[in-house]
Amino acid sequence: MIRFECDYAEGAHPLILQKLCDTNMEQTPGYGVDIHCETARKHIRDACLSPDADIHFLVGGTQTNATVISSILRPHQGVICASTGHINVHESGAIEASGHKVLSLPGEDGKITAQQIEDLILGHFHDENFEHMVQPGMVYLSWPTENGTIYSKNELLAINSVCRRCRIPLYIDGARMGYGLMSDSCDLTLPDFATLADIFYIGGTKVGAMFGEAVVITDPDLKTDFRYLIKQNGGMLAKGRLLGIQFETLFEDGLYCRIARHAVTQAMRIRQAFQHKGIPLLYDSYTNQQYPILNQIQIDQLSRRYSFCFWERVDEKRSAVRFCTSWATSETDVDQLLSDIGHL
Amino acid sequence: MIRFECDYAEGAHPLILQKLCDTNMEQTPGYGVDIHCETARKHIRDACLSPDADIHFLVGGTQTNATVISSILRPHQGVICASTGHINVHESGAIEASGHKVLSLPGEDGKITAQQIEDLILGHFHDENFEHMVQPGMVYLSWPTENGTIYSKNELLAINSVCRRCRIPLYIDGARMGYGLMSDSCDLTLPDFATLADIFYIGGTKVGAMFGEAVVITDPDLKTDFRYLIKQNGGMLAKGRLLGIQFETLFEDGLYCRIARHAVTQAMRIRQAFQHKGIPLLYDSYTNQQYPILNQIQIDQLSRRYSFCFWERVDEKRSAVRFCTSWATSETDVDQLLSDIGHL
Amino acid sequence: MIRFECDYAEGAHPLILQKLCDTNMEQTPGYGVDIHCETARKHIRDACLSPDADIHFLVGGTQTNATVISSILRPHQGVICASTGHINVHESGAIEASGHKVLSLPGEDGKITAQQIEDLILGHFHDENFEHMVQPGMVYLSWPTENGTIYSKNELLAINSVCRRCRIPLYIDGARMGYGLMSDSCDLTLPDFATLADIFYIGGTKVGAMFGEAVVITDPDLKTDFRYLIKQNGGMLAKGRLLGIQFETLFEDGLYCRIARHAVTQAMRIRQAFQHKGIPLLYDSYTNQQYPILNQIQIDQLSRRYSFCFWERVDEKRSAVRFCTSWATSETDVDQLLSDIGHL
Amino acid sequence: MIRFECDYAEGAHPLILQKLCDTNMEQTPGYGVDIHCETARKHIRDACLSPDADIHFLVGGTQTNATVISSILRPHQGVICASTGHINVHESGAIEASGHKVLSLPGEDGKITAQQIEDLILGHFHDENFEHMVQPGMVYLSWPTENGTIYSKNELLAINSVCRRCRIPLYIDGARMGYGLMSDSCDLTLPDFATLADIFYIGGTKVGAMFGEAVVITDPDLKTDFRYLIKQNGGMLAKGRLLGIQFETLFEDGLYCRIARHAVTQAMRIRQAFQHKGIPLLYDSYTNQQYPILNQIQIDQLSRRYSFCFWERVDEKRSAVRFCTSWATSETDVDQLLSDIGHL
Repeated sequence: MIRFECDYAEGAHPLILQKLCDTNMEQTPGYGVDIHCETARKHIRDACLSPDADIHFLVGGTQTNATVISSILRPHQGVICASTGHINVHESGAIEASGHKVLSLPGEDGKITAQQIEDLILGHFHDENFEHMVQPGMVYLSWPTENGTIYSKNELLAINSVCRRCRIPLYIDGARMGYGLMSDSCDLTLPDFATLADIFYIGGTKVGAMFGEAVVITDPDLKTDFRYLIKQNGGMLAKGRLLGIQFETLFEDGLYCRIARHAVTQAMRIRQAFQHKGIPLLYDSYTNQQYPILNQIQIDQLSRRYSFCFWERVDEKRSAVRFCTSWATSETDVDQLLSDIGHL
Repeated sequence: MIRFECDYAEGAHPLILQKLCDTNMEQTPGYGVDIHCETARKHIRDACLSPDADIHFLVGGTQTNATVISSILRPHQGVICASTGHINVHESGAIEASGHKVLSLPGEDGKITAQQIEDLILGHFHDENFEHMVQPGMVYLSWPTENGTIYSKNELLAINSVCRRCRIPLYIDGARMGYGLMSDSCDLTLPDFATLADIFYIGGTKVGAMFGEAVVITDPDLKTDFRYLIKQNGGMLAKGRLLGIQFETLFEDGLYCRIARHAVTQAMRIRQAFQHKGIPLLYDSYTNQQYPILNQIQIDQLSRRYSFCFWERVDEKRSAVRFCTSWATSETDVDQLLSDIGHL
Repeated sequence: MIRFECDYAEGAHPLILQKLCDTNMEQTPGYGVDIHCETARKHIRDACLSPDADIHFLVGGTQTNATVISSILRPHQGVICASTGHINVHESGAIEASGHKVLSLPGEDGKITAQQIEDLILGHFHDENFEHMVQPGMVYLSWPTENGTIYSKNELLAINSVCRRCRIPLYIDGARMGYGLMSDSCDLTLPDFATLADIFYIGGTKVGAMFGEAVVITDPDLKTDFRYLIKQNGGMLAKGRLLGIQFETLFEDGLYCRIARHAVTQAMRIRQAFQHKGIPLLYDSYTNQQYPILNQIQIDQLSRRYSFCFWERVDEKRSAVRFCTSWATSETDVDQLLSDIGHL
Repeated sequence: MIRFECDYAEGAHPLILQKLCDTNMEQTPGYGVDIHCETARKHIRDACLSPDADIHFLVGGTQTNATVISSILRPHQGVICASTGHINVHESGAIEASGHKVLSLPGEDGKITAQQIEDLILGHFHDENFEHMVQPGMVYLSWPTENGTIYSKNELLAINSVCRRCRIPLYIDGARMGYGLMSDSCDLTLPDFATLADIFYIGGTKVGAMFGEAVVITDPDLKTDFRYLIKQNGGMLAKGRLLGIQFETLFEDGLYCRIARHAVTQAMRIRQAFQHKGIPLLYDSYTNQQYPILNQIQIDQLSRRYSFCFWERVDEKRSAVRFCTSWATSETDVDQLLSDIGHL
């Protein structure tokens, strides 16, 4: 069985493993104040052209989202989010468990617009009963989205502008940020995110690390006491160096982007193979997730050799499924898949 | 200005005030264990034909909903609700503040169906990622709904049956229960609620009391330690007798239903006046809330003498507004309104 | 049975009842924006010499404490409090339910000192592991305390000074504030509280009202969005006028203080009767709560005619009990009690 | 600088690193349902002689404690704990953030007694105002404690018996369990914990793993839906196999105990060296943490070559400090330390 079901089917990039082995018996202080974390922070600040940013390392995405969001909102505030956003559907209610409503907006291809956000905020404050309703307190975007799509620079600029005007922070979940940055359709860079978002995270778990997410805080107001909140949310690893070592490796000489580029290249090969076969794709995704719409016979045929995800029923005969590539996807496996798609 | 904007514009029914005056200098123990609370409990158990029910008195609706729902759900569970449900839109996030997601379903006229509820529950457990999603843990209905509509006995039976099969409790918010029970279109009784719901509340604030809601718990599993939760949620009035005295008065000889009937009668007069004038109504409401669809001229004309609520824009020229009656609505005021509707 | 067990055994002061009757059929808008609330706010601002204070009315003490404290603290912060403080022992964990630890300090006679508070705060920030500990985020005092004692002006000045230096707000729970203000041993006034506390509440439930507490916010930073939080915590009464009417009555011409003075006078008569009999008192209380230390024979004798609270065992033979007076305590009942104490 | 300040200064035991390298490119499903997790579960069930236990892997201790405790308690319940317990002092309020009070008891050497627990529980239910207080809902013990001490089998039997009688679960935090099991003063085994605790965890982070804690649930009532709660609390690692691989390695042939034994042996050497020098120890610890009481000259002397923790001031001239050993402590480093202690 060759797995295309997700982008976390393997361990870590071999260079990361190597570094973990090389440093294993070093003695360091705990909780993320060691030399590896410091070096990783420096690399990330450099990559973001953001020398004053605070950088924190957490273990996973759900934890990062819950920590960031609950660190920002007051009790009567909620977070604006696409209805398909990870925090709205796939975090077992972690945001609500921290006391906050997810204010979901219908999203085309996983994206929401500046206009939708502005309408929701103005609508709230124009409502006579506004104090009886959850106040919109911040915006959450995922980039790339859960559907593989990405906001353009203009789209993010417009959203940033609404957030500035309404004085609420913009937070970007970059669990798969590398796969967005390396997409041919991307016109954004890490420094852009450092400028356009008040706080965002660069995902490691899905892009080469064993685990780990790097939170970048550029808004000074959001920096206060963040480490308490990491600890309270169970994200302060005793051996914090493990996160430092991994991000140090990913960011010291561009490994993060190189391996993300590989995944996108393989995804585009798969995309084109389906298109060449006349098989439509559910979303205009140019990142590492592809959503072909297949009939049952095609699904059964591909299921013999590959694992992939059921996504949603499209019509009576067809369903969309998801194929993911990652830093670890083997070119040979994709060759095989392409051949099998050709024979559908 | 004559107020039809809500059903809580006046104080309390005069008999309640009288009783509060008569008992004022009695000395009683605090926190709801006094003789007036006990008598009121007995009256309500009798009215529900439910001798084993636990009856608790709380101060207001938002508090009651938050107390009941957080007493039932485990941290990973949410409450199923119509998207228009009070807990979803008008409680400032009180349910989320207690840690739980409101799982909203689109509702026609404020109602949801047994089928929708079953689909949501089965859909949850059939999803591969179900453990990453909020588990549906109970159902919340408002009766009458926020749109003045009411579930029929058959509709409630069907919902009760889904809840039984899925082993999750059914909770009914009866903030305006009197106005539903006294509607000509109602085929349900208090004993029906005691049978069909696992827990529900009979609203006092909007039906004659100064304030107060009576929670009726029939499911033995839901009774445990409920008083702790009332206290924790700020609902345990030091002078608990105030609630006992009010419900004692409302339920000792049918006052609750009599005054609710008055409100419904006046609402039907208003409904018919609009209909007679050819003015459509947004919802098929036969309870104390009416939603005529008016153009701006009509709204301006009526606004001179009456206060009422803007509800929603219907089309470019027209909006729905809400007129409420209550136990306190004066027949003369309604005569005047009818005359003014006639002259629109 | 004559009840001295608490200060909420009766209804409301007759003038309040009268006013509720007089205004009963007035139509007002809901949720505390009516004319009675506005007038009451003005009276209280005047009484506090604090024209810019925000005044909000809530229903009860536990609700008020939970609303105020959760409106102020960030998730990693806790509230400093005497170990005997109401929020630490008698609110069923309402503060923790809102996510915050109560950082309790041992208190002599229910009071804590500026030095203790400063030591706790400095100790926190000097600890190497401070980010692993709950950060002290505010101070809670009750005045009078749960033991009937009161802080002097100098004591409050010192605590205020620590709070200023450490930049954390000072909150004072005045559930029985009237009984403190009218004590002969009191050197503080309402304007002092408006100056020394950032936020405090003036208790109505125990001092003449049916129910209700008036929150006074003088620190501008603490004013933002407070009404959302009242609503979320179930404290926004639909018929908000009920609170306005009560506080209007209490504060329009000094009723609050007059009736509190009565209670203190009666309490002092009881105190002196015990002292005259050679019966020691557990606390140096000059407010409406008195704590005589009695042996079992004395307890049994007084229990025949009076209800009072067991407080704590003092030694093998004796226990402290609590006698409360209130605005409603009858002088004749106290005469009787004095006579019975004389015959112990 | 040789670090004795904690037991998480290095990476992972080399055999774990080796296994992570060997399995790195295996493709597995995510979220802890892979073959390595299954195998690790089997090994742990075998080691506990508990074939029906549920085994879950989480990332760290704070996360594990918050997940377990919030999965068990209802909103009005708290967790009984020694005042020195990790959840009471060093988790940044994670338990309170989940809504629950920590009911702390003064503990001698970090331990509490069955009698203290019973008194607290009975005291609660005998109090007239019990519904106004946090209900004790479970017991938390750490084993070894934060002071290096361990409960004996008899002590645990007594506590288990109180919990049974009072029908509340017993939870044991085994962050350093290996170092307790391998102590010469220990009369307990893993199967004993599976019998005496309703739920406990076996710590990996401090005993050879990079990170990871294995929760063992023996009480069927506590098993329901636990995976949802892991996910909600951010503990469900996408690459769950990382935890499986580590615990597989630790438990397939006794590695966990062997390496823990090494740490205890080194700790005993250090203990004896201090004792031999006439330096007293603060606690009777026979596990991997040692607390010598040193004067400032001794502290300065040892600080030149070693890092260790300040623990607490003992008197004007002396302080207790903490030396930790671990699976990674080098015998040569301890030789050096012993020599330096000899020269104090």
